[in-house]
This record gives sequence, C-alpha cells and structure tokens, in this order.
Amino acid sequence: MKKTFQKIFNEIKKLNSKLYKSDFLLTWNKSKNDLDRVLLIAEALKLLRDNGLSARCFDSGLAVSLFRDNSTRTRFSYASAANLLGLEIQDLDETKSQISHGETIRETANMISFLSEFIGIRDDMYLGEGNKYMREVGESLDDGYKNMVLPHRPGIINLQCDIDHPTQSMADLLHLKKYFGSLDSLKGKKVAMTWAYSPSYGKPLSVPQGIIALMTRYGMNVELAHPEGYELLPDVVKVAKNNANESGGSFNIVNSMDTAFRGADIVYPKSWAPYAVMQQRTDLLKNNDKQALVELEKQCLVQNSQFTDWECTEEKMQLTKDSNALYMHCLPADISNVSCDKGEVQKEVFEKYRIETYIQAGYKPYIIASMMLNNRFKNPEALLDRIVENQVKSVMA
Amino acid sequence: MKKTFQKIFNEIKKLNSKLYKSDFLLTWNKSKNDLDRVLLIAEALKLLRDNGLSARCFDSGLAVSLFRDNSTRTRFSYASAANLLGLEIQDLDETKSQISHGETIRETANMISFLSEFIGIRDDMYLGEGNKYMREVGESLDDGYKNMVLPHRPGIINLQCDIDHPTQSMADLLHLKKYFGSLDSLKGKKVAMTWAYSPSYGKPLSVPQGIIALMTRYGMNVELAHPEGYELLPDVVKVAKNNANESGGSFNIVNSMDTAFRGADIVYPKSWAPYAVMQQRTDLLKNNDKQALVELEKQCLVQNSQFTDWECTEEKMQLTKDSNALYMHCLPADISNVSCDKGEVQKEVFEKYRIETYIQAGYKPYIIASMMLNNRFKNPEALLDRIVENQVKSVMA
Amino acid sequence: MKKTFQKIFNEIKKLNSKLYKSDFLLTWNKSKNDLDRVLLIAEALKLLRDNGLSARCFDSGLAVSLFRDNSTRTRFSYASAANLLGLEIQDLDETKSQISHGETIRETANMISFLSEFIGIRDDMYLGEGNKYMREVGESLDDGYKNMVLPHRPGIINLQCDIDHPTQSMADLLHLKKYFGSLDSLKGKKVAMTWAYSPSYGKPLSVPQGIIALMTRYGMNVELAHPEGYELLPDVVKVAKNNANESGGSFNIVNSMDTAFRGADIVYPKSWAPYAVMQQRTDLLKNNDKQALVELEKQCLVQNSQFTDWECTEEKMQLTKDSNALYMHCLPADISNVSCDKGEVQKEVFEKYRIETYIQAGYKPYIIASMMLNNRFKNPEALLDRIVENQVKSVMA
Repeated sequence: MKKTFQKIFNEIKKLNSKLYKSDFLLTWNKSKNDLDRVLLIAEALKLLRDNGLSARCFDSGLAVSLFRDNSTRTRFSYASAANLLGLEIQDLDETKSQISHGETIRETANMISFLSEFIGIRDDMYLGEGNKYMREVGESLDDGYKNMVLPHRPGIINLQCDIDHPTQSMADLLHLKKYFGSLDSLKGKKVAMTWAYSPSYGKPLSVPQGIIALMTRYGMNVELAHPEGYELLPDVVKVAKNNANESGGSFNIVNSMDTAFRGADIVYPKSWAPYAVMQQRTDLLKNNDKQALVELEKQCLVQNSQFTDWECTEEKMQLTKDSNALYMHCLPADISNVSCDKGEVQKEVFEKYRIETYIQAGYKPYIIASMMLNNRFKNPEALLDRIVENQVKSVMA
Repeated sequence: MKKTFQKIFNEIKKLNSKLYKSDFLLTWNKSKNDLDRVLLIAEALKLLRDNGLSARCFDSGLAVSLFRDNSTRTRFSYASAANLLGLEIQDLDETKSQISHGETIRETANMISFLSEFIGIRDDMYLGEGNKYMREVGESLDDGYKNMVLPHRPGIINLQCDIDHPTQSMADLLHLKKYFGSLDSLKGKKVAMTWAYSPSYGKPLSVPQGIIALMTRYGMNVELAHPEGYELLPDVVKVAKNNANESGGSFNIVNSMDTAFRGADIVYPKSWAPYAVMQQRTDLLKNNDKQALVELEKQCLVQNSQFTDWECTEEKMQLTKDSNALYMHCLPADISNVSCDKGEVQKEVFEKYRIETYIQAGYKPYIIASMMLNNRFKNPEALLDRIVENQVKSVMA
Repeated sequence: MKKTFQKIFNEIKKLNSKLYKSDFLLTWNKSKNDLDRVLLIAEALKLLRDNGLSARCFDSGLAVSLFRDNSTRTRFSYASAANLLGLEIQDLDETKSQISHGETIRETANMISFLSEFIGIRDDMYLGEGNKYMREVGESLDDGYKNMVLPHRPGIINLQCDIDHPTQSMADLLHLKKYFGSLDSLKGKKVAMTWAYSPSYGKPLSVPQGIIALMTRYGMNVELAHPEGYELLPDVVKVAKNNANESGGSFNIVNSMDTAFRGADIVYPKSWAPYAVMQQRTDLLKNNDKQALVELEKQCLVQNSQFTDWECTEEKMQLTKDSNALYMHCLPADISNVSCDKGEVQKEVFEKYRIETYIQAGYKPYIIASMMLNNRFKNPEALLDRIVENQVKSVMA
C-alpha cells in the first residue's frame, strides 16, 4: 500500500495547481493540472480508506449543503466526503428558512458561514440560474471575508447546476482512468455521449454537458448524439469543440445513436430535455404557470415518444468496439421492463454493467473530498503523506 | 468501577458469538450466547458512560438511518448510539430521494454505503414487508461488497419491523436483568404480555411478538393474553412455544387479562391490532384505497371498544405476585385521563412505575451501540478494556 | 494572541458565577457577573477560532435542537456552537414524532436526553407558552436526573421564547462592547429601541423585550419608542425600569421615533406585533380558528399601515448623535425597495451598516458556545487556557 501511495504522491508533486482557495464550479475553468490533481488526491484518499487509515484533518467545522432538487447519491457522497475529513453536515433547508434571490443571497451566504468550511450547492432546475447563484454566493462570501465578517472564506462545491455537474464528470473520468489503466490510455478512445429515450421529461442537461466538456480535454474522440431538437447549450458545445482542438481529440455531433455507438470504446446513453424546452420551463416555473407547465410536459412527452428506439440495446452494443464498449450511467437509469416499460437501456445491457456503474458512482465521495482538500490546503499531499507515515487508523483496532 | 467492569469483562470472555459481521434482524436467529453478549457489552458501555469514559472507536464513518414510520425514542437511541461510538447520523429521507421496491433496493443500498458503517431501518407498517426489505438490503450489500463496490460491508440493525423489534425487546430484557439482579433469577418468573385497550388502531405487532419470542428463551413463564380475534402472527407464536420448550419455561395463550395478571412477576399491557386486520390494512395501503382504510379503522375502533375493560388498573395489579409486579411499557403509553379518556393503563398505576419505564427506555441506546460493536469487532471487549485501562475521558476535564 | 487571551483570562478569573449547571432562559435571572462571564468566554472562543485553535472539549455527545418556528441564523449558530465544542446536532422534528403539552413533556424530555448534553429550544409563537415550556422541560430533566434515569442533566438554552431572546441580546451586547471598546464605555449611551413599520404582522416581542431588559443593566439610557397600541409585555417593561434604576441608567417610553432617535448613540428599529394582538393570536391559534386569524391579520395590517412613517431613513439618522448612531438589527430586516415596497429601514441606511449587522450576527455562535461551556464546566477558562498553552489546532497543518 505504501508503494502505491508513494507512486501517487510522486505524481501529485509534479502538478502545480490553482485549486487552493478556489471554488469548484466548472471543470472548464480549471487547468488540466488542477483536474489531474483532483483525481490523484481522490485516488490517494480511496487508498487510505480501503486500507483503514484515517483522512480526518478537521477537528471541527461545518460542511453546509443546499439541495434545491432531490438527491440521494450526491447527498450521501457529499456527506461521506465531509465526514471522512472530520466535518459535520449542516443542511440548509429552504422550507425551514426564508431564502430567495436578490439582496438576501448576500446575507444568507454570510449567516451560514461563520464557522463553515464548505458550501455544497445543487441548483439545476432553472436554466441560466444555478451556476449564477453559486457565483453570487461566492461573491457574497468574498465580501464577508474581506470585511472581517468571516474568519475564513468557505469554499463552494458545485453539486450540479444548470451548466455542469463537475463532481459527476470527474468521478466518471476517474472511473475511466481506472478502467483503462491511465489518463494517457484514454487518448484516441471514442466516447458516445448519446441521448436516450425516457418516459419522463425535464431531466437536466448538466451531465451530458459535463461529459462533452471534460472528456474532450483528455484527447478523446467525443461523439454527441441526439435527435434533432435535443440540442445542448451552445456555449458548452463550443467549449467542447475548443477542448478537442487543443487536446488533439475530436468532437462532433450526430443525429443517430447507431453512428455514435459504432466503434465506440465507451457509451453513455442518457435522457435529457432540449435546452429550448428547459428555457421555456424555466420561464413558466418562474411565473408559476402550472397550466402551461402541464401543457409543456404533455408536448414534450409526445415529442420524446417519437424516439423510443433511442434505447441502449444488446444489438446496439454489438456496434461498439469489439462489441464490448464500457457502458456508463450517472444513475438511476430508466431500465426497460424494470423501472419503466421502455427506457434508456435494456435490462440485459444494464445488468451486464450494473456493477461497473456502481463502481463509477463510488468515486464521487472521494472526488468531493479531494476538491475539499485541494481548496483548503496548499499541499494536501503532505497531509496524506503524514497520515500514511504515522499509520493513523480510522477505526480503533 | 474497574471492579464492576472486570466482572462484566470476565463474563463476556466466556461467550463465543457469531455476531461479528452479522446483521441483527431477529432475536430468534441469534444464539443465546449472542444475546447474552449484547447485554453484557451494553452494560459495559453504560458503565463507561456513567463514569465519564469515552467509548469512541470510530474516527469517522456514517450511520445511516431509514425511518419509514415516525419515531422519537428509537431515532434518538440510534443517534445516541452512533454518536457514542464516533459515527455521524445520515438520514435517508425517502421524500427527498426516489426509493422503491424491486430493482432499486439493490442500487440504493450500495449508493448510501460507500463510507457507511451501519444502516438502521424501521419498516413496520406493512405486514410481510418490513423484515423482507431489510433482508433484501442485506443481500444487496453482500453483492456490492463481493463485487468490490463497497470497501466494507455495513451492518444492518432492525429498528422495528413487521415481525420483531429487537432493540426494544433486548432493552426490556436488560431492564429485567438489572431489576431482578441477573438473567438466572428470571427463570420461572411469570410475564404477562397482554393486549390492552387503546382508542387508536393499527399499532404494530412487533413489540408483543418480540417479547414472547425473547422472554421464553430465558426460562420465563410467558402468558400471552388478548381478546379473541387479536391474534399475533402464528409463526412467531410457534417460535415462542419452541423457545419455552427448550429453555424449560412455558408459553401459553389466554383470553383474559385477569388470568394473565394472576401471580405475574411482570406485566406488559399494550395495545396492538389483530394480525388479520394488519394484513387487510397492508393490502389497502398498497392499493392506496383510502375509503376502505377509513372504513377499516371505523370497524376496528368499534371492535376495540368492546374491550375497554382490558385496562391495567390498580385492582388488576392486586392480582399480581405480592400485588407488586413490575409494570413495563415501550412508551408512549395510552394513559387513561391523561393522554386519552380511557386507555391501556390507569394514571395511578403508570405514575407508580413511570420512572421504571424511563429507565427501561434508557437501555436502548446502549443495546444499539452494543449491536454495532459486536457487528464490527471480533472482540469489542478488548477495545473497552483498553479504554478503561487508559481512562480515556469523554469530556475534557 | 496569547497576550489578548491572557487579558481576557485575567478578567474572567475575577468573576464568580452561578452559570454552572444552570439553564439560560432569561438574562434578567442572571447576575451581572454571569452575563459578563458569558461575554468574556465568547470572546475567548472567538479568539481561539480566529487563530486556528480547537475548542473541542467533548469527545461525543448530542446537542438537541427543537425549533417550533422557522430559523436560519439561530439554527446555524446553535449548530456551529455545538460543532465547535465537539457535539453533534440532533434535531427533534415534531412532525416526525408526537410531542404535545401536558404529561408527555416530562416523558419526551427524558427520552431525548439519555446521552445529550444540551437542549436548545425556540418556541416564540404563543404568548405565555414558550418560556413556560422551557421551564417544564427543565423540571422534567431535574426529575429524570434525580431518579437516575439520566446520567447527566442536560442544560437548556433559550433560542427565543415569547418573553426573551437571550442569545440575540447577548450577541448584540457583545457587538456593542466591541464597537465602543468596553462595557464601561456603554454607560450613559443612548439606545433607541424603536418599533418600525413592516408590511407583515405577528413578529415576536422577544427581541425588543430582550434589548430593553438587558441594555438597562449596563447603565445605558434606553428609550423605547412605538406607536400607541404597540405595547410590550408589562412585566418586562417593569424589569427594564428596575434595571435602569439599579444600574444608574434610564428607561422611558415615547410614542415618537424622532424623539427616540434624537441624540441616540445606537438605534435598533424593528417591527413587532402589539402584545394584546399576540395574546389574541395565541388564543385563536390554540383554537385553530383560521377565519378569525385571517381577520386579525387584516386588521393588524390596516393598523400597521397608519405608521409607514416609522421607517429608519437617512433623515432620521441625522437626528442621532453626531448624525452617526450605530444602526442595529437582528436580521433579516424589511428593507424598503429591496425586500418590500416600504419597510423598517431605507436601503441607503441599511447598506451603510450592512457589514456591521453581519458582524453583530457573527457573535451569536460564540455566545451560545459560551453558554454551553459555562453550563457544563465550573471553570471553562481553565480548559481554554490549556488549549492556548498546548496550541491545539482545529485544522491539521
């Protein structure tokens, strides 16, 4: 174990980063060094935990969570990460307080931060709002810290917004690194990020957007597939194109699932709502126009129903590289004949990769803990090194 | 204190157990050695706490709680137990996530367990479902652990199901052990586990079932009393009979509270719904048939109202051994003229034993903590011994 | 830092107190020594935290919170205080349990306290009820402790009741001490505690009551201003009068905001409901008379609307001492043209003092932690001294 750790440790030391005291809101605002660092520290943390060593480095402190949408996976990942480092979760339940936009963001951000180390936010329902809200919270904290209201400026972690879902895409990337052996081995691999049919509507865009923007940085050939009319945010598509140019990978968009699957090393079939619909929905939600929302849902489901053949079937999997692409999903998947009549993926395909999707999900707590450590410490690797050196156990033995 | 601890410690050392890495779902699936061990470690933990010593043996880790029914006592007991050992509670709030039966149990069980040590579950509303659900969660965790999804297989603790309420019955047993001086002294004691009138309906069967199945193992003479039509689950009644045969105690069923009280050393008068009604109710709840549920409640309350004389009165207490049986209740009791017009127990009787019922309840946190320790450590007694040796304080002094 | 700490430490040592094992329910039941002590320990705790030292003195233990009204600020303050000292928050959510008045207070108080160190309660909706409830909880805990149900008698902290809001007023006092340099310098300062217009109704009386009862003890000249009909509880007004007499300060009531502002060193403009209305409201809430509640609200808003000129404007601020009084608010304030059309304070005034109100709020976690320490330890200063001596870090470095 010490040897594996030492190897990770040596890699980390080569990477200068700007993560210290910096919020983690979008992967494309981080340098590649930064991203590599987040992966390595996450690996080191997992190694510690798997070997019963304690990564506790806070004696006290709160990790605030603010979930503006339901969550099980990310909620538990954030809680686990905080607990692993010695922080206590304090949930900001907006139904039990009075938070809104405008002036009060500034106030609330400070009121919850007097002794807090991190604020994790999920805000993915309103297009154009989620990420903006996180940045406003950040500015409010800067203001509070500058004016001596806060003894310490808590770091913000994006737990999914309207644009990106960095804790998901980074966990996905770590999964790929482990599955294929290294980041280098990802170069030239084909990823099919494709839309898939679901009997629901209004699923956020942040996962596919996060994937195309991140995987293009690692020299991968990313093919985004969706039916016409299911476009992602143009700004993020542009980011993906630029990333591909810079990394020597490629990025293109097709309107056929089969085309995307052909020769793919990795497939990520997942439903989402067209951004134009999300924009309409955002306006209706803001106006609380329930009638129109019901109408919009009806329309969208009718639209969706034209594309029930966008399903990840065994047949389609035959099109992939050696008929053996890695299937990925952020979970929960809409599995045909299991969670719905007809959905994103056939039961047989999902079952074959079920354990892999669980392992994929299992990296998230460590990715979040790594983001925390890199935000809070200039050289978190030195901390971890000391823990390994001293063999600090997480459970009394 | 060291002497008392040493005595407990010596007793524990004699008991081989199979509790290590084993879920605690039903007392009758545990050997008597196992049960004795849970009691002894609970006593040791209480002794530590009463003497200001720290039983913290986890540096971090989550104790997940999943309450599918309201709870104050058990919720706080579970939270206290987890906290005592150094674990943080993370509640799985199903209204804030999407959990259901079938395929997703397997997934959710793994998603909440990446860094969790225990999962405590209350699921007592649906007959035939609660315990089954816990076993399904357990199988899902086994699957995840076997497939390297989970670095550690969390233990499951039954915080009340449709069949048993082991943290309650074990706390009750510890109360009896302390009250009468030893487990041996319980042999031949008569316990009247009797139905009592309540102006409500639908109370779970798990408490009376837990009591008759557990107390019969300790050579006690258990008399179950209820009006005709208020039968418990036949399977559990059979367990109680067998246990009595094996332990040299006895078990029989009568339809008169007076008969049961006569000569009793211990009385446990408590309301419950007939299992046939619970079965009907389960079906109606599953079909969400509100009309029929209202109708069923009405019927049951009418049926109940025939038995308002099943009340634990001072007069009835005169029938007990030396007119001085120990009154027990899992709380909250329906106290006549206090919490209702007419209920399970007369105010005067309850008031006389009020403090005893509180003391009874006070063992539950230690019972749960003991189940945790015995699940997680092969020799938890060695850990506790070291704490006593080193005099680790729980509060800075 | 050590020098500043030593100065605080020397001051503390002079103050005998009766805070040990004593609930903190009303400031006017505490001696001035007690209050001075709470301030000093709070200052010491803040100093530690600002210098990265750990104030953890509990290895485990629960801090129960019971909020019968919405809260963000106080909820986070209480959670932060508990976490700072090493305790875990366990919220008693009455919607998930069955708590009511009468007999069951006694039971519930014990059931949640087996391993708890503190119970923080907010109960400010019903006049004549909140503080009474807290005292009943206290008596129940005394009873449980006396009867060996509880190994330790948890301390109670009033997080706002119908009469007082001591964690707020003490944080406010600490803000004044810091702002003006010392408690001595507060003597003779004029405080205008004045009603202000708000487009809402039913705001609790506890803040203005807490302020007039506390500031009068420090030799300040407190002027309470409100329109006729907006009286505070007569009993508390009497307390304020007596306090002023004893401290050499003054207390009087006027019906003009301008009069109060004239020459004031400090202004605290805040809306509240007349106590007569609160009394009516309490009765209607108890009877669940929704119709009458709507009617009452309508009446009150009409009544309020006669006093929209009770607004803290730049013009009014010109009337204060050197046109430069310190503006205070417990937050959130109703800011005209920001959170409402017309409210308690002009945007320009609030913005000028915004940071000061945040700093004011920032003392609350330390005040609560100080109340906890003083309740639990005879000489908390000795503990803190040892932490400073040993330079125990709160974050690994």
